[in-house]
Amino acid sequence: MENSTDIQAYMDELGRAARRSSRALNRASTGDKNAALEAMAASLEADQEALLAANREDLAAGREAGLDEALLDRLELTPDRIAAMAEGLRQVAGLPDPVGAVRDLARRPSGIEVGKMRVPLGVVGIIYESRPNVTADAAALCLKSGNAAILRGGSEAARSNAAIADHIRAGLAAAGLPEEAVQVVATTDRAAVERLVAMPEYVDVIVPRGGKGLIEMVSRKASVPVIKHLHGVCHVYLDDRADRRRALDIAVNAKTQRYGTCNTMETLLVAEGVAGDLLPELGQRLGEIGVELRGCERTRALLPHAHAATDEDWDTEYLGPVLAIRVVDDLDAAMDHIDEHGSRHTDAIVTEDYSRARRFVAGVDSSSVMVNASTRFADGFEYGLGAEIGISTDKFHVRGPVGLEGLTSEKFVVYGDGQVRT
Amino acid sequence: MENSTDIQAYMDELGRAARRSSRALNRASTGDKNAALEAMAASLEADQEALLAANREDLAAGREAGLDEALLDRLELTPDRIAAMAEGLRQVAGLPDPVGAVRDLARRPSGIEVGKMRVPLGVVGIIYESRPNVTADAAALCLKSGNAAILRGGSEAARSNAAIADHIRAGLAAAGLPEEAVQVVATTDRAAVERLVAMPEYVDVIVPRGGKGLIEMVSRKASVPVIKHLHGVCHVYLDDRADRRRALDIAVNAKTQRYGTCNTMETLLVAEGVAGDLLPELGQRLGEIGVELRGCERTRALLPHAHAATDEDWDTEYLGPVLAIRVVDDLDAAMDHIDEHGSRHTDAIVTEDYSRARRFVAGVDSSSVMVNASTRFADGFEYGLGAEIGISTDKFHVRGPVGLEGLTSEKFVVYGDGQVRT
Repeated sequence: MENSTDIQAYMDELGRAARRSSRALNRASTGDKNAALEAMAASLEADQEALLAANREDLAAGREAGLDEALLDRLELTPDRIAAMAEGLRQVAGLPDPVGAVRDLARRPSGIEVGKMRVPLGVVGIIYESRPNVTADAAALCLKSGNAAILRGGSEAARSNAAIADHIRAGLAAAGLPEEAVQVVATTDRAAVERLVAMPEYVDVIVPRGGKGLIEMVSRKASVPVIKHLHGVCHVYLDDRADRRRALDIAVNAKTQRYGTCNTMETLLVAEGVAGDLLPELGQRLGEIGVELRGCERTRALLPHAHAATDEDWDTEYLGPVLAIRVVDDLDAAMDHIDEHGSRHTDAIVTEDYSRARRFVAGVDSSSVMVNASTRFADGFEYGLGAEIGISTDKFHVRGPVGLEGLTSEKFVVYGDGQVRT
Repeated sequence: MENSTDIQAYMDELGRAARRSSRALNRASTGDKNAALEAMAASLEADQEALLAANREDLAAGREAGLDEALLDRLELTPDRIAAMAEGLRQVAGLPDPVGAVRDLARRPSGIEVGKMRVPLGVVGIIYESRPNVTADAAALCLKSGNAAILRGGSEAARSNAAIADHIRAGLAAAGLPEEAVQVVATTDRAAVERLVAMPEYVDVIVPRGGKGLIEMVSRKASVPVIKHLHGVCHVYLDDRADRRRALDIAVNAKTQRYGTCNTMETLLVAEGVAGDLLPELGQRLGEIGVELRGCERTRALLPHAHAATDEDWDTEYLGPVLAIRVVDDLDAAMDHIDEHGSRHTDAIVTEDYSRARRFVAGVDSSSVMVNASTRFADGFEYGLGAEIGISTDKFHVRGPVGLEGLTSEKFVVYGDGQVRT
């Protein structure tokens, strides 16, 4: 495609095809959707050569373009990774079908029965970066939830994504579902993204999966709803009624189990009453692991080797081996700190006090609020959603890890016996 | 306020105050919220003079400005209407508090327990037109659902709305809740609306209640989510396995019980197999009531007095005594027509056929789908929501009549016993 008029026409064509096939998907049986997922998995496993060859071309082009090793690693497909992709498709096939579930069906005084039925959103647009396995994951979640999908991966994985799309189409065809139910955008031009997020007549929701830059760009340009995931400045508050062992283990795990994830603790809050008891041992354990500490004045009185935290530290998502530590007076001060500096992602309290645990859970306005557990559990698999298309830091429509249910809506169903309104 | 800089500063001040008070409301007890609603109702009933005087001023200014009688009637408050407003507040006090309800709490393999807790959205902005009772209704629904509210009524009701706001503040104060939990915008400048819909730092969702022009303007300017209600082109399909009596009664009721409402039927679809039996009697009944009929050719062969329908008729929300009628081959043709011409608001089938009823319910993508009941039932009170802040024709977040639940979101709550992730 040579110019933006061509790209717009191309995207509109994808949009129309997606809208058409979304009607068929809305009515597709659970059996047909699962058969398509199984057939995709079988196709990926049976015939890997074309996909591996396409991936080698992506890798070569990436090396030439000077991509760093971490990015190249994320881009690379191996037989094991393809098997994992196929396994992911089969796991989604094994999840309960959310479509058609009815809740709260009840008789009204007029005699009609009213309930809410879960239904697909329609067409989902997903914009993501280098990992090609997202193509299969996203296709599976959209299909299982009865939505048509338009997928736009990173340009560095374009050949791999196109090859995966062949397997997806084969699976759809094998199950008798429209091949256009999942479409992969064939151009890497940015104008395609700008059009994708601004055609509400064809697309019902956009899910961007990637760095802050991508998400901010999409949010700015979008005229359709966006399920967005901004940053995670997550807290653990060690209350003065915390169990000592739990407090230390959770703090260490929430910071160090993995550094680069959004549910990693970035700031530790410690009640003044236990700071003197907990911080020295904690400082030693974190120091041994190689975590740099940045503390408030009261922290540094107990941990002289900690650097002085600046105001900026309280608002920073380090995504690395750095931890901000603040000693606070009590639960209220901790909650105020979280309210002011948190990103409403995931926050935890460690306490044995019943009423304080209840106050923290009710009062902290974050997508996940935890008692006596590591923030690292905030994840679709750990929560039992089976798979995750993203984590929403918004409050509208869906909050926290987004699984199949987040890709659906509810309509009212009414069963009558000839009732009319008087 | 003299210029747009002043108005922006004023709106920002309202926004900051709303955000502050939303934190208190999030934690407010059900008892305190109900006490505030009861106190508002008592205040409205005890002291009506200032409100009636303000309303007389609005009416006089409206007459001077040449408002038509229908608008003046909607604007007018009487002791009876004030009593109904107070009764509405008490009804909301009687509804279950949605905040804090936890569903699906279940133990995961790691040992943590994970569930979803219903929480307020935060700050709700409501923009509405002439009826001043919306001020009390909207305040009540926002308060009960734990949200702070910024209300912007029509300029023609400005004095009445300000007087109602005094009672709302009195009620909040009586219950010890922040008076800024409900704020009524004091300027009628349109710049205030434009700012209200574009301050995501202070406002979490906008609900416009009014005509198409208002809703389109708000949608165009908004940078925060909008719960919007566009038009209702509602259908009733009379299947050839319909019960004759039910078919006739539902068709007449759906069209004529009230003309100006969004859930009124605008197009009747009739299966060819029963058109000859049903249409003559139906044409006679509707003719007696004074409904103008516009039919397809097959309809006009049976109802010679019907006008010829044009393509435009199938897409028109008449909001008046006009009905489009189309004879269709079968259920599939009816569903295709609804898919192409409907507005995804409310559609009904009349049939005694089990499988067709199921296919219609599953396959029609509208916010309310009905079997053997009049479309006029699509309403928050009839559905048992207790009250309604609007009807959403979107799919994202909430569809159909919006009650307290539509003003909330869900966060994940996690209860552990010291679990860490491995």
